[in-house]
Amino acid sequence: MYRNLRIVPYLIFGRGSYAQLGDVLRPRRTGSPAVFMIDDVHEGKPFISKLPMEKKDLLLFVNVDVEPKTKYVDELTERVRASSSRPPDAVVGIGGGSTMDIAKAVSVMLTNPGSSADYQGWDLVKYPAVYHAGLPTLAGTGAEVSRTAVLTGPVRKLGINSDYTPFDQILLDPDLLAGAPADQRFYTAMDSYIHGAEALRGTFINEYSRAYADKSMELCREVFLGELNEQVANEKLMIASYFGGLSIAYSQVGVCHALGYGLSYVLGARHGIGNCVIFNHLEEYYPVEVREFREMVAKHRIPLPREMTKGLEEHRMSEMIRVALSLDPLWQNALGPDWKKIMTPEKARELYLRM
Amino acid sequence: MYRNLRIVPYLIFGRGSYAQLGDVLRPRRTGSPAVFMIDDVHEGKPFISKLPMEKKDLLLFVNVDVEPKTKYVDELTERVRASSSRPPDAVVGIGGGSTMDIAKAVSVMLTNPGSSADYQGWDLVKYPAVYHAGLPTLAGTGAEVSRTAVLTGPVRKLGINSDYTPFDQILLDPDLLAGAPADQRFYTAMDSYIHGAEALRGTFINEYSRAYADKSMELCREVFLGELNEQVANEKLMIASYFGGLSIAYSQVGVCHALGYGLSYVLGARHGIGNCVIFNHLEEYYPVEVREFREMVAKHRIPLPREMTKGLEEHRMSEMIRVALSLDPLWQNALGPDWKKIMTPEKARELYLRM
Repeated sequence: MYRNLRIVPYLIFGRGSYAQLGDVLRPRRTGSPAVFMIDDVHEGKPFISKLPMEKKDLLLFVNVDVEPKTKYVDELTERVRASSSRPPDAVVGIGGGSTMDIAKAVSVMLTNPGSSADYQGWDLVKYPAVYHAGLPTLAGTGAEVSRTAVLTGPVRKLGINSDYTPFDQILLDPDLLAGAPADQRFYTAMDSYIHGAEALRGTFINEYSRAYADKSMELCREVFLGELNEQVANEKLMIASYFGGLSIAYSQVGVCHALGYGLSYVLGARHGIGNCVIFNHLEEYYPVEVREFREMVAKHRIPLPREMTKGLEEHRMSEMIRVALSLDPLWQNALGPDWKKIMTPEKARELYLRM
Repeated sequence: MYRNLRIVPYLIFGRGSYAQLGDVLRPRRTGSPAVFMIDDVHEGKPFISKLPMEKKDLLLFVNVDVEPKTKYVDELTERVRASSSRPPDAVVGIGGGSTMDIAKAVSVMLTNPGSSADYQGWDLVKYPAVYHAGLPTLAGTGAEVSRTAVLTGPVRKLGINSDYTPFDQILLDPDLLAGAPADQRFYTAMDSYIHGAEALRGTFINEYSRAYADKSMELCREVFLGELNEQVANEKLMIASYFGGLSIAYSQVGVCHALGYGLSYVLGARHGIGNCVIFNHLEEYYPVEVREFREMVAKHRIPLPREMTKGLEEHRMSEMIRVALSLDPLWQNALGPDWKKIMTPEKARELYLRM
């Protein structure tokens, strides 16, 4: 049995395509509000004043200093509900992976009862989401195309995985990547590079995912080891992210993402930077890719935090290991069906202690 | 203004995934028939006996010895209408590019009045099509993912281009490629190789289309110049076709396809073989690619017809040139806005006379 992939059915790519957002929303408008959910780092930026907002529309700046929590999604859903007696015509998410995941999750929660924590898992969503569109302002997570909205809940960090989660429309405007801090840009981009490495070295891969992963990594290489001007680099980076997200469809992430989930759950480390810190120590599993990654880090003089786990209390270290090792499919992909013999709690601890 | 791409929203890829067709159709069934339109070369093959047919379903073997005509699409639409008082729950197309285009066109015509010739052009379709699914048995045309259904009408060869044309679901089962005659397999595969060359050397391309075209050509290279076993080759070929189809989204075909439209309109040459015959004479426009193409031809000992235009009456030659030169966007992509100064009727005639 192969998965029936749900693919974002409408896509616009091109510099300045942000200006088409109003046209895209027009046929969806029935008189209810549209809701714009935007990463609050963009507050006051020129593009905000060009949002195609109409009278009743709601503008919500969301904060993603920490990874999105189910509680936060529930609060935002309530705010949208409270603002209008009718469900919105559209939800638009503009930001990095976390903001897009929040927009996806809120779209789902507007038509489904209970808390978003009830839907962390696979195919638990009952009713179609409100129409939702995504505009990435950071490239690398693949959240613009993925079938999940990753949330940290009371007991786990796990996505709302469903056919209703993906966006109905994405607008990939490379100009929206301009102005991101260089470090943040790099950490996020490496998410797609690491996706590629984990997919290609994994055991689950097929030729569909291989083609996307290969090309995604090649684009990252061009961007971070080549000599491109910034505009072309941003165009390629946006495609690298999109392809990286698609490559996961018939493969899985691996060692880095599994350990990353633990790190992020316990230390609250952001996904992008957390993965970079971890990947740097995974030569054993991704030898060629880690060397190339270090070249990119060096060339762009990207700081990688050190000693993140130094002095960590034992119960938090144990929790981190527990969360990481609970992700069976990721380990199966990375190390095969007998992964438990290889990735023992001791080995995971040893890896975490290096970080 | 960038095009808002309509992308096939559900996709299954994998060897043997044909067996999932019944599961895919199940949620679409409301008691009306499903219609299976299958290339008649497959009549009697083992996979036909495994079609997930139910009592009222209709099985139509279609003939694509010549490229699909609007008249034929209209006849098939009538046959489907005559078979049931209610529109079908689903139309399933199984075959090469022509069969898939017929299935796409019939799905559109079942819900739209008049003749399919009325809809040749861009965005002329008024009502959503019947749900339709496609399963390619030849790889290369990209018809499984394209926004068009190419038809030869009373006055032109032109596609039904609309957001309602693309399939709602595709099933890419590389095992369905097994057993195709080697020549046919090659001619069709080269369609995606030529798509790539025309896109990459064209003036319309952006990074989205470049990434797909690059990878599509690379996969063709692996298949026809590498040493793969047949199963892996078929897997890669299926992705090459899918990527080739996607690469056209933000680019255009070029010299080969423009001349090919003329050749096919006047001589009825099949798209795949016609393009191969033409491409072989286009060193002037695609130097590296034509050389590589010839390597592939030689390695696989593929016969290329010669002297196709020998002794052609003048009025048919003129018609061929007229049809080819009417395709303004293709020439603009290939040769720039001043293409008419380069590709004069005399030059087109000279090229045709070589074939």
